[in-house]
Amino acid sequence: MPRVIVDVMLKPEILDPQGKAVAGALPRLGFDGISSVRQGKRFELEVDGTVDEAKLAEVRSAAETLLSNPVIEDVVSVRVAEETA
Amino acid sequence: MPRVIVDVMLKPEILDPQGKAVAGALPRLGFDGISSVRQGKRFELEVDGTVDEAKLAEVRSAAETLLSNPVIEDVVSVRVAEETA
Repeated sequence: MPRVIVDVMLKPEILDPQGKAVAGALPRLGFDGISSVRQGKRFELEVDGTVDEAKLAEVRSAAETLLSNPVIEDVVSVRVAEETA
Repeated sequence: MPRVIVDVMLKPEILDPQGKAVAGALPRLGFDGISSVRQGKRFELEVDGTVDEAKLAEVRSAAETLLSNPVIEDVVSVRVAEETA
């Protein structure tokens, strides 16, 4: 069954306290050289049938209305997953 | 500054109530043909300097210890972001 991956991230101008907490914890655990972390969401949607342009547009529209909050989040990408996983 | 993307998903055998809720809401909003949704996390890490194999291995190790809970989650991918965003 084809799988579509949707990535949602906070808009760049929105503060990301979760990401900041992770960035602060990294050096304490011995991981240096990472200056900033932002945390977002990743959805895997299993789609019935085949995924064509129209289906992908529908998923994008779902992503923009249901999977993300358009006030504070951007849908970064909507793409078909390679058949590896 | 190079950016590394880390994707973390719940292991397949772990129930995902958040994803289930999304999958249930999609038909109510008029989006049909999506049989299953799983929700995970996506991290964007800004790395100082250049990203070589060693750095990527270090980020993967950080992803497996800090960004994910290895009991219930898998690090699905660790990759360098294309310079588009």
